[in-house]
Amino acid sequence: MKQIALLGSTGSIGIQTLEVLRLHKEEFSLYAMAFGKNIDRALPLIKEFQPALVVVQDEATKDKLEKEWQGSTILFGSGGLIEASVADQVDVVVNAVMGSIGLPATLKAIEARKTIAIANKETLVTAGHLVMEAARKHNVALLPVDSEHSAIYQSLNGESKKDIHKLIITASGGSFRDKKREELAGVTVEDALNHPNWSMGAKITVDSASMMNKGLEVIEAHWLFDVPYEQIHVILHRESVIHSMVEYVDRSVMAQLGTPDMKVPIQYALTYPKRYSLENTKQLNLEEMATLHFEKMDMDRFPCLRMAYEAGREGGSMTTVLNAANEVAVQLFLEGKISFLEIEQLIQQELSQHKTIHNPDLSTILSIDEETRKRVHLN
Amino acid sequence: MKQIALLGSTGSIGIQTLEVLRLHKEEFSLYAMAFGKNIDRALPLIKEFQPALVVVQDEATKDKLEKEWQGSTILFGSGGLIEASVADQVDVVVNAVMGSIGLPATLKAIEARKTIAIANKETLVTAGHLVMEAARKHNVALLPVDSEHSAIYQSLNGESKKDIHKLIITASGGSFRDKKREELAGVTVEDALNHPNWSMGAKITVDSASMMNKGLEVIEAHWLFDVPYEQIHVILHRESVIHSMVEYVDRSVMAQLGTPDMKVPIQYALTYPKRYSLENTKQLNLEEMATLHFEKMDMDRFPCLRMAYEAGREGGSMTTVLNAANEVAVQLFLEGKISFLEIEQLIQQELSQHKTIHNPDLSTILSIDEETRKRVHLN
Repeated sequence: MKQIALLGSTGSIGIQTLEVLRLHKEEFSLYAMAFGKNIDRALPLIKEFQPALVVVQDEATKDKLEKEWQGSTILFGSGGLIEASVADQVDVVVNAVMGSIGLPATLKAIEARKTIAIANKETLVTAGHLVMEAARKHNVALLPVDSEHSAIYQSLNGESKKDIHKLIITASGGSFRDKKREELAGVTVEDALNHPNWSMGAKITVDSASMMNKGLEVIEAHWLFDVPYEQIHVILHRESVIHSMVEYVDRSVMAQLGTPDMKVPIQYALTYPKRYSLENTKQLNLEEMATLHFEKMDMDRFPCLRMAYEAGREGGSMTTVLNAANEVAVQLFLEGKISFLEIEQLIQQELSQHKTIHNPDLSTILSIDEETRKRVHLN
Repeated sequence: MKQIALLGSTGSIGIQTLEVLRLHKEEFSLYAMAFGKNIDRALPLIKEFQPALVVVQDEATKDKLEKEWQGSTILFGSGGLIEASVADQVDVVVNAVMGSIGLPATLKAIEARKTIAIANKETLVTAGHLVMEAARKHNVALLPVDSEHSAIYQSLNGESKKDIHKLIITASGGSFRDKKREELAGVTVEDALNHPNWSMGAKITVDSASMMNKGLEVIEAHWLFDVPYEQIHVILHRESVIHSMVEYVDRSVMAQLGTPDMKVPIQYALTYPKRYSLENTKQLNLEEMATLHFEKMDMDRFPCLRMAYEAGREGGSMTTVLNAANEVAVQLFLEGKISFLEIEQLIQQELSQHKTIHNPDLSTILSIDEETRKRVHLN
């Protein structure tokens, strides 16, 4: 039986991870779960899964939770996250927290040789060089949970990395794919949150609309699969049926397809190299779909993707700035404080004024992250 | 360096196999090549590749060839085919002959533990049980050359067979895919040979139009991948971009895609588990394709596919009858002696009157094959 530490239990990925665990009680057990402050959502899950260890964001939440639940050890803060990630009993750490808060815990989990199921983009976007170096050093598998990276991982299964010609990441186009740039000025938060294919959290849904999500995925893919940016291609595919592809040197293209259900890549990351059945997930029915569409990605229409490629190629601390600026800008948009198009303007501003620090260490990354967030907030 | 024995050198697959060998002279060498009687086509190839051994159909062709070429040992007939297939020097036998003539040589090659690249459908359709039993016994790899089976093979790479939920074979629909059944009465040989996607030999192009090609592929897939007929699904996909797929128990679907170029699966069979570059093959450009279509397969519209499933499920000698009847019927059609719709009628007639012999041995298969051919010819 695999023992799981789930960081980010009450978010979209966390909830779906617990659904997968529920389906395979013989195979998985939840040793530790971490969440922020949402006790209302977490408490029924804690009662159901009875993890040995629960980690919350701060001491106040810990005190509150302790009054309602005495069945687990309760810890808090990043120290708690690390403790959950390195516990001897844990086999797989699912990093599904939002933002860069999961980064130190992930690095510690790698040192402790845990398998990492990674759903947290920031970890690789801001510290890909540190994470991958540690993974290589400790010979740890980093299994992607994102549907695109899972598709690439599956398309690489049994293949030799040196035979890759390019990675082809598909993008649904997000909520505004049928709008021209000039139509984006007046879009609302509600419009942005109306994703055509996937049901996800608010932040990632806005990132899909701006195409920054795809940009972060490109950077993530660069690190995860050790492929240069020139060989990572993004293509618009509105149906999200082909989740991503790998073209090999012999022109063969391997692809993973499916219905848009995050439980599939989540489970794959937990069961790899095996596959378990996933009965209550909708089967792909191509006959019913009838048509799949593909379009060239337009970098002028989606400047966030262009900025992500540029930041990725520049490397060093530039991707930390990209990610931090985007995170705050999206938050400001969701709070109604800035318009949709101001998201990209704020990011561009931060990228333009930043002087890259090459090969930054963890503390440099965390301080650049913090500074950038502060500066964007002040805008 | 891999030494190749190529059976069927002057056919469509043979010529393209030689193109692949030409691209990788450091990796492959042609030890033996076999062809029928077409010396005009074969001689320049013999001079170019200078194989140690050449096999022709009959003694008369051997005598004729010997006058023009003294650089190789020249053999003839099925004894010659076997000698080429079991020669110590040979690593891979490419079976690309037409019809069941390649069957005994394939079985002998398996006994001699050669890797088999199999482009000859009849071998598996008529004697799948013998071939697969021999392959298991001698631990020999059977590598498919057909684009559909190569796609499935690639989609199974790195995966566990027990996790297969179903195989999904794609069908372009052939020359008459946009015609209704009632429009098929008056179609000509020329119409039938006008395949929308692939450039192939005449027999297989007619088989594509009648959907018998897909039926033979279903039977081939059953043997090659040891999957029951209930788990082999055919879907219409007019663009032939997705060459076939495997759905796993977790609802993940793996697919291989590419332009319609037989050199890709031919080379894969020769290089497996590696991939070599294939520079002068057109890259798949999904953005340019823009749209992929999928439709449910209609067994009433394509009775040959239904008959193939029925014969496959019945098993034993029934698939030999299916294949032999089809081969002669297509020949009669190509000679202008019967109409397109009479192909399926002749096959149905043979299947209806045949009493299955279960688990037939090689000589039983060959004699049923011969009897069926004779009977269809007499029609």
